[in-house]
Amino acid sequence: MSDLRSQAIKNPIDIAEYLFRRLHEVGVRSVHGLPGDFNLVALDYLPKTGLHWVGNCNELNAGYAADGYARVNGIAALLTTFGVGELSAVNAIAGAYSEFVPIVHIVGTPSTVSQKNGMLLHHTLGNGDFSVFSQMSSHISCAMSLLNNQHEAATLIDDAIRECFLKSRPVYIGLPTDMVQKKVDGDRLKTPLDLSFPPNESEREDYVVDVVLKYLQAARNPVILVDACAIRHRALGEVHELVEKSGIPTFVAPMGKGAVNETLPNFGGVYAGDGSNRGVKERVESSDLILSIGAVKSDFNTAGFTYRISQLNTIDFHSYGVKVRYSEYPGVRMNGVLKKVTSKMGKLNIQAGPKPTNEIPDMAKLSEPTITQAWFWPRLGQWLQEGDVVITETGTANFGIWETRFPANVTAISQVLWGSIGYATGSCQGAALAAKEKGIKRTILFTGDGSFQLTAQEVSTMIRNKLNPIIFVICNKGYTIERCIHGWEAGYNEIQEWKWKDLPAAFGGTPDEVLTYRVSTKKEVENLFNDKQFVSGDTKQLRFVELVMEWDDAPKALKVSAEAAAKRNAEMSA
Amino acid sequence: MSDLRSQAIKNPIDIAEYLFRRLHEVGVRSVHGLPGDFNLVALDYLPKTGLHWVGNCNELNAGYAADGYARVNGIAALLTTFGVGELSAVNAIAGAYSEFVPIVHIVGTPSTVSQKNGMLLHHTLGNGDFSVFSQMSSHISCAMSLLNNQHEAATLIDDAIRECFLKSRPVYIGLPTDMVQKKVDGDRLKTPLDLSFPPNESEREDYVVDVVLKYLQAARNPVILVDACAIRHRALGEVHELVEKSGIPTFVAPMGKGAVNETLPNFGGVYAGDGSNRGVKERVESSDLILSIGAVKSDFNTAGFTYRISQLNTIDFHSYGVKVRYSEYPGVRMNGVLKKVTSKMGKLNIQAGPKPTNEIPDMAKLSEPTITQAWFWPRLGQWLQEGDVVITETGTANFGIWETRFPANVTAISQVLWGSIGYATGSCQGAALAAKEKGIKRTILFTGDGSFQLTAQEVSTMIRNKLNPIIFVICNKGYTIERCIHGWEAGYNEIQEWKWKDLPAAFGGTPDEVLTYRVSTKKEVENLFNDKQFVSGDTKQLRFVELVMEWDDAPKALKVSAEAAAKRNAEMSA
Repeated sequence: MSDLRSQAIKNPIDIAEYLFRRLHEVGVRSVHGLPGDFNLVALDYLPKTGLHWVGNCNELNAGYAADGYARVNGIAALLTTFGVGELSAVNAIAGAYSEFVPIVHIVGTPSTVSQKNGMLLHHTLGNGDFSVFSQMSSHISCAMSLLNNQHEAATLIDDAIRECFLKSRPVYIGLPTDMVQKKVDGDRLKTPLDLSFPPNESEREDYVVDVVLKYLQAARNPVILVDACAIRHRALGEVHELVEKSGIPTFVAPMGKGAVNETLPNFGGVYAGDGSNRGVKERVESSDLILSIGAVKSDFNTAGFTYRISQLNTIDFHSYGVKVRYSEYPGVRMNGVLKKVTSKMGKLNIQAGPKPTNEIPDMAKLSEPTITQAWFWPRLGQWLQEGDVVITETGTANFGIWETRFPANVTAISQVLWGSIGYATGSCQGAALAAKEKGIKRTILFTGDGSFQLTAQEVSTMIRNKLNPIIFVICNKGYTIERCIHGWEAGYNEIQEWKWKDLPAAFGGTPDEVLTYRVSTKKEVENLFNDKQFVSGDTKQLRFVELVMEWDDAPKALKVSAEAAAKRNAEMSA
Repeated sequence: MSDLRSQAIKNPIDIAEYLFRRLHEVGVRSVHGLPGDFNLVALDYLPKTGLHWVGNCNELNAGYAADGYARVNGIAALLTTFGVGELSAVNAIAGAYSEFVPIVHIVGTPSTVSQKNGMLLHHTLGNGDFSVFSQMSSHISCAMSLLNNQHEAATLIDDAIRECFLKSRPVYIGLPTDMVQKKVDGDRLKTPLDLSFPPNESEREDYVVDVVLKYLQAARNPVILVDACAIRHRALGEVHELVEKSGIPTFVAPMGKGAVNETLPNFGGVYAGDGSNRGVKERVESSDLILSIGAVKSDFNTAGFTYRISQLNTIDFHSYGVKVRYSEYPGVRMNGVLKKVTSKMGKLNIQAGPKPTNEIPDMAKLSEPTITQAWFWPRLGQWLQEGDVVITETGTANFGIWETRFPANVTAISQVLWGSIGYATGSCQGAALAAKEKGIKRTILFTGDGSFQLTAQEVSTMIRNKLNPIIFVICNKGYTIERCIHGWEAGYNEIQEWKWKDLPAAFGGTPDEVLTYRVSTKKEVENLFNDKQFVSGDTKQLRFVELVMEWDDAPKALKVSAEAAAKRNAEMSA
């Protein structure tokens, strides 16, 4: 120990160990990423801190997987190497930033000595500037902790992890090779990180609660609309209590799918303007009070901005404040407000809402054998089980799932706002791993053939990690979502036709590890859904299904949203 | 046309058409990338401007492919969509920035109207800030042209393409959806872009030439050392003339492989300090004058900074200036100086250098059948043909190739500075396409099994584009380059074992499109190298070879470099 101050540390532990023990403490059990020479020594610390190394095929996929892991587990860690590794992951990190997913991104960097000397190292731009990549990441991280100094390291680690959890967004931790084994005070670990949200100022909160109650009690037919931020900002407990206790007809936006128990008698379905479930648009838009919780009014979450609800009839609840009609109450977090509203609301005027079912629409029942989008998604709803984790890719799946009524406790994962195709397959790896760690039986992925090509090799990582998700690849000859926007029959929306179900074996999957299927008719889907080995959460094999659908078939909600996008793209400036 | 000024345009053409015609003019024939809704309408313009759409599997791979295309073709174009697409490619673009590869990166962005209104669109961070992603790219681009205004568009396009070519680095062109069909003056296209380097100021150049000549003529045993920037900054013509006319013993740094005709009598081999070819280190380091052309003295290009040459014996030639011992002459580009030095040098003192051959070293000739690194790379040199394009991945291949003496006119592609694993497979797709367009017969890839997993799906793009490269996947059970640095037998350096040669068929390759092989002994390599169908540049099938080598075998140069890297990583600050 060359440093005098280090001698004062009573219970010294290495910085890498400290970092990993903190991650374990907040619930991380597996770390996603790839080895690279600037992170290798750090990787040696994983086993002794009780963390499993996933070993992904590439960093973008690892980033997507960390995102999926975080959505099931509550928080995730990603470990990459300087420059080449971290930059490959930025799209995934930007997606997590956009969609409020907490990922601790640890980047192994060159030693502080090499950085100070501006050495011409591999994985650099060759200009001696070692700050470029962290600068790039600073745009998509809610905290930057560069551990360039032994004496700040523990504090910076604690701050980063806390911010990650509380803001529910990615943070960046830069770990230089020469800091990995420097010592920090291990006794700090005896005090767990405080991950509780600071409570609202009480007088302020009570004031807001009173205002909300005044409107709520006066309302003739209030509805609740739950969206993504209720999930991401950890308000589901308060939401469930309000929904169940009040009996108010409750709807979800597409990004809020899974936030509410869809088997409740007052669950009314998906509201997304013109893309809403049957009867929902009318019901929501005729309400005189919408309790809008955690809304993200993005184009694809509103079927192309086709919401028709007035702010005069709306109360918005957010992590950063509450807005009643046009009155804003910044700094008053929704959680406390919702809790008090629920406890004080008394008897309300409730008018029943629609009751979504998974009934197949008449049009879709027609006798032709082809698997149609209109038929499949409600049929899926009949087959899903309580507790399933369901991942849908940006594309037909992401819009089709609007027509699937879930059983209780389904975790739905999708990227409606960021919308990066390829996300879902990577995300499935992480989600399936987190599910396994938590004792959840089934993780089910729906992706498209075009999207699957971007990140296909993560099926290999699933096999390597002995995961058993059920994967549906919708084989419909290309980028259907793009076709719906522009280039209906254009060559650029076509793809190379793969032998999809031969891939898991090429990735080394044995029959003990992978089962494959191909269904191209409704009858075959029925048989598959009744196949016990296929259905069971206890089947240890990964199940890989080619789900054949027509190239020109798309869910109604996708068509509406795509048309609006095309129009907006063409919109000319004055 | 709502705009009055547009009425004055005599020969109006759409901005997208203008952009693509300019790309065609500077030599681009194929555009890499993926469709995305913000670039779809632009894609419609490709056929009419004579450009082929590649249609990659993901954007990182597309970026790598554009890099490989540019290294063979001189310049490349990459087309992605806002946010999700462009960010997936930043690692490839950073690599091109680092290694001086000219890629025009066109990003389809939301309409200027949507941007102005800060709309909550998909593919955004949800915060109304549309400038984040271009800000991130500005760190790794030598010009940023955001085409937000019709009246600047043509100038910005011309500037970007010119900068890209002259600086040999990526540029970023942001093309909003509503600008694609706005009009610019088509008559501008009658004047081709001026892509010539501005000549050096004549008196200044002559002064430098005199200084160089003084030292050169006084030298007793000068050598030439050619490195990457001679290739990337387009000085190969001048270099060849100097090397051939002078007869000075000439060496290449690893990144300069392929810059010099290695069959010339005065070609002496690879100089990389302790990683040099046999006899080269002694010869170069005992020289009293090193004409160092386009040097990039990075760690992996110098076998871990083991150069032992004095600046007092060195003249450095660069694109940005010349340095004679410690005297600097900024702003004097190497091309003009080299040309004049060659024409004026007169008779020089020349002492012969070593003569590299592809002889197998005695140690490697031993009778065991295993394919060793020491045996393979010189054996490869005997098999390569004039004009081949040879791509080696960061890993054993990248270091092994130092021991391969090339035939004439070989184009060598690798990423010694940036060193992103996965690069080579993507790059091979672009290089093979450019080679095909230029009538070059064979493109040959050497990658490792670990690296191959990152970007494997680009084999699908090769099949889709009817390319016929020869692909060797070195199957040695994981990340050998990382093992050499740290974690010799660590689990994190292992990979999932794929059925490598089953992949092309799973990617839809038919026997008419793909031939597969597996070689695990020297004898099998010999047979393969004598198989006419395998060898011929006229064979229309892609050839995919599992090249089995031992997990613990690595080229000498890799071991030296890795040891230095490990030491540097551990180096403690004071």
